[in-house]
Amino acid sequence: MEKVIKMTLLFDFYGQLLTERQQRFIELYYGHDFSLGEIADQYGVTRQAVHDTLKRAGKILNDYEDKLGLLDKFMTERNKITEALELLRGYRQDPKPEQLDRVEKILTEITELSEE
Amino acid sequence: MEKVIKMTLLFDFYGQLLTERQQRFIELYYGHDFSLGEIADQYGVTRQAVHDTLKRAGKILNDYEDKLGLLDKFMTERNKITEALELLRGYRQDPKPEQLDRVEKILTEITELSEE
Repeated sequence: MEKVIKMTLLFDFYGQLLTERQQRFIELYYGHDFSLGEIADQYGVTRQAVHDTLKRAGKILNDYEDKLGLLDKFMTERNKITEALELLRGYRQDPKPEQLDRVEKILTEITELSEE
Repeated sequence: MEKVIKMTLLFDFYGQLLTERQQRFIELYYGHDFSLGEIADQYGVTRQAVHDTLKRAGKILNDYEDKLGLLDKFMTERNKITEALELLRGYRQDPKPEQLDRVEKILTEITELSEE
């Protein structure tokens, strides 16, 4: 996964576990495309300090995902739902019962997974 | 939500953030229905110590959910998928196009939510 997208998703999942400053820097850098220098100017710190804060925050987010794997679980499920949706749309354009079989199978698997 | 079920779900989501001992006690108490006294005997600690560890662990899990809300997000999505599955099964027993409209709408909403 591309780094900016991955960091954005990780931040969306675990961002609330970071400090206020770590959150702001990530939002500016990854969300608003600020440079290290621009963030440094705005906060009155060095470029190196911004770099270190971003690096540390990124490591924290990655460590949470390594432990919990919730983003991975979420993305896997999201891909299955997208597949089900494509099959359903295919069926509505050109109905073949096998497509609905597969949609039902995918949705059933997802709901059963959560009951383990 | 019933407390045992909620604790089990919270533990499933965030359990890896607890200490080994907190994890074992939760598994025994909520997963295997051990009493406080049985856990205390097995670990050579007091009932009170087991109680305190469970209470502390429960608070940690609840605090993570308060901050991140990932279990809530997951359950909301799970309910939508269950609804879509029921509509789809209804359609297959007695086809009405509106049912497929609603299935498609639900699945579309879920996939669009993740792209925000």
